[in-house]
Amino acid sequence: MTAAQFREHGRAVVDWVADYWERVESLPVLSTVTPGEVRAQLPRFPPEVGEPFSSLLDDMDRIIVPGLTHWQHPSFFAYYPTGASGPAALADLLSSGLGVQGMLWQSAPACTELEQHVLDWLAGLLGLPERFTFSGTGGGVIQDSASTAMLVTLLAALHRASRGRVARDGIDRGRYVVYTSTEANHGFEKVARITGLGASAVRFIDTRADLSMDPRALRTAMEHDVAEGRTPVLVMATVGTTSTGAVDPVQLIGPVCREYGAWLHVDAAHAGVAAICPELRWIHAGVAEFADSYATNPHKWLLTTLDFDACFVADRGALTGALAVLPEYLRNSASESGAVVDYRDWQVPVGRRFRALKLWAVIRWYGAAGLRDHIRHCVALAQQFAFWVGADDRFDVLAPHPLSLVCFRLRGGDEVNRALLAAVNATGRVFLSHTKVRGTFALRLAIGGTATRHEHVATAWALVSEWADIVATPR
Amino acid sequence: MTAAQFREHGRAVVDWVADYWERVESLPVLSTVTPGEVRAQLPRFPPEVGEPFSSLLDDMDRIIVPGLTHWQHPSFFAYYPTGASGPAALADLLSSGLGVQGMLWQSAPACTELEQHVLDWLAGLLGLPERFTFSGTGGGVIQDSASTAMLVTLLAALHRASRGRVARDGIDRGRYVVYTSTEANHGFEKVARITGLGASAVRFIDTRADLSMDPRALRTAMEHDVAEGRTPVLVMATVGTTSTGAVDPVQLIGPVCREYGAWLHVDAAHAGVAAICPELRWIHAGVAEFADSYATNPHKWLLTTLDFDACFVADRGALTGALAVLPEYLRNSASESGAVVDYRDWQVPVGRRFRALKLWAVIRWYGAAGLRDHIRHCVALAQQFAFWVGADDRFDVLAPHPLSLVCFRLRGGDEVNRALLAAVNATGRVFLSHTKVRGTFALRLAIGGTATRHEHVATAWALVSEWADIVATPR
Repeated sequence: MTAAQFREHGRAVVDWVADYWERVESLPVLSTVTPGEVRAQLPRFPPEVGEPFSSLLDDMDRIIVPGLTHWQHPSFFAYYPTGASGPAALADLLSSGLGVQGMLWQSAPACTELEQHVLDWLAGLLGLPERFTFSGTGGGVIQDSASTAMLVTLLAALHRASRGRVARDGIDRGRYVVYTSTEANHGFEKVARITGLGASAVRFIDTRADLSMDPRALRTAMEHDVAEGRTPVLVMATVGTTSTGAVDPVQLIGPVCREYGAWLHVDAAHAGVAAICPELRWIHAGVAEFADSYATNPHKWLLTTLDFDACFVADRGALTGALAVLPEYLRNSASESGAVVDYRDWQVPVGRRFRALKLWAVIRWYGAAGLRDHIRHCVALAQQFAFWVGADDRFDVLAPHPLSLVCFRLRGGDEVNRALLAAVNATGRVFLSHTKVRGTFALRLAIGGTATRHEHVATAWALVSEWADIVATPR
Repeated sequence: MTAAQFREHGRAVVDWVADYWERVESLPVLSTVTPGEVRAQLPRFPPEVGEPFSSLLDDMDRIIVPGLTHWQHPSFFAYYPTGASGPAALADLLSSGLGVQGMLWQSAPACTELEQHVLDWLAGLLGLPERFTFSGTGGGVIQDSASTAMLVTLLAALHRASRGRVARDGIDRGRYVVYTSTEANHGFEKVARITGLGASAVRFIDTRADLSMDPRALRTAMEHDVAEGRTPVLVMATVGTTSTGAVDPVQLIGPVCREYGAWLHVDAAHAGVAAICPELRWIHAGVAEFADSYATNPHKWLLTTLDFDACFVADRGALTGALAVLPEYLRNSASESGAVVDYRDWQVPVGRRFRALKLWAVIRWYGAAGLRDHIRHCVALAQQFAFWVGADDRFDVLAPHPLSLVCFRLRGGDEVNRALLAAVNATGRVFLSHTKVRGTFALRLAIGGTATRHEHVATAWALVSEWADIVATPR
């Protein structure tokens, strides 16, 4: 594709995206296709000869869009929304255009240094301690996801706990144990499996009434493991669980970790970015004092299009100790000087695209004030929804909801709640998801969409309220 | 950013990228900045109030571009080039605009089904066997990199070899061993560390004269390990090593793997895509008969902007067995029907962006014929360069060069070759990298850039040839 063709088709794509954002509200949020329906519309064999770019855009409209669940729909309230934004999307196009690969400082210096800089900015905005910045002993790195952040920090923790032995000689089955709450992201178990610890090395600690990790139960579990000769390697505390948004008491978990020498990782994948608002910074209580590592995903609630997890470590040496391997073909004088960061040693892959541009563009376009406005707007809408649910005696709010997620339930059995969820989603006008709260089926409404306004939340409540009567009426 | 603003700034970004591609040839390929120089130009604190988008583009010109090594420069011959292209960049913008997250089929059906379909297309173009497609027992999945493909396939292999025990109970130190050649990508050792096997579980098998793995040495190593009670879990064969482009004899390695029950993974990260040309398909000899998994990176040599690794497995059950964890909040009827693929169980992260659009756009824009032209063009240029080097008795070509990489050396010591590399790179007109071939310093010239033409390779040879006399002359 020549530069001139790129200009022409690029304009068409920019307009296509803008049109999509303008019309997405008119589409059913949850896709209505059946399994295989999309593939059935695609030609069995790839084209032998190239096609005009317009035929791709035609197929976007004809096949792809009808086959999608629309995450940018303002009434997408399921899982945790991913907030796409114009500046992030355009910055990612700049990254694609530059096409650089930042495995080493030398291979793309500005890719590395902008990442260091923007993550130092983010650390400042979130009130993270200096040891998580490049002014201190640590620093930030972009990972694709919170699970991958769990993976690399667990590897760093194993490296520290084993003094390098795990990287050299591998895991001794049954020797190391890791801890998180019963409510934590399931990615943690997956990561324990990936690192060779196995699922059985994970201790799922019971929660308190508010669904946050019980630090006394944590201590009991650690005491027991140590008494039996096992080594507590890492505790993952969660600031904003996926299921209900519970905030673990890091300030109480931290001293337990310190006593037993365990690495404390704080997974704040969704909620962490809320700490840019001073009135919400309480969610980070204890992080500055105790955390060894911390991760939050600007791609969830900070308008930074996928993939963008910001992962911070206090001791960058533990991370690179676990992950660095230096082949001859990547040796270079900048790396050998020790004056630069080579991010390939901070992650699983060798190669990496220039993702820092996205968060740079987002912070510059919105400014810190604009980002705070976005967080506050979402929190206010969630509080409004929780108020409506709480004021209606057909419903119960099932968990604390200080941020942008509300878990609730129609009084009655699980079946009627499943029916309610299915009914409101079948309208195509909203998409909510579900979870279980202490074994009970619950509906989840999560706010975070870039275009979500009061009217969308009001409509969601109206639909829930109307359908509640219908599904609750015996047929 | 409103849709109207997005249209305006989007046009500016499209033009910025087109301008960059048009002027990149005039820039020094290898960045001339010193460590810290980029950061020193960035404001210490993020802006409190948002800035106009134009100020970001100004800083792209003023700070970022001068701080980069230009991978899209037509005279970038280092490492392996990453071929960015217009259709891939624009398709990625479509992905950013849609902002969907394809963790589950239900969460974005077209994201999943297009990925299945396009990877089936690619399998067909590369001549991979049906068992690597969704018509068979396996299928393809997009990973971010070849290292990550190594990671997930090694996890699948451990799952199969241990009958699920590793995922449940973890690694027994010293029990499992894995094999690759001394010339293989260093990511393999990193992956062995990540999975808890440790670096000491990796057997680096000696190579034959052509730097490909010696299957007899592999058999000897396996025999020895089995005799000592260890279990050979996986062999990674390489089709096109990073260092010299060597092609391991998969057709001879495969029977050894089968005899000892080891999983055979073929890492064809750079070279694999060359198999779209029938006359180059010999690189896959043995893959159809013996491989359990296979990975190649369209983001290297198939015009598909980072990140895009195509990873194929013959037995999808082994992969999902190793990686699937199902929390309540992701349960859904489509998954439970068994009729769909949930790609989160094929990868480390939970979330994933819609990357399949990129390869779809590339295949449709260029057509299979256009992609073959690109590969053949690069191979022809490399053969021309190798011819020039080989015809000049000041130089030696150091390894076979059937594809797009040429390793060569000025006759003389390592120091004069280091000086030659430094001198040609210091001109700013080309960027070559280096490796060691059997312990000897060698220059590497790799062709793969989207805009690389005969004149660029001719200039590279002219520079190498001129500077060879200068550096070889005693001062």
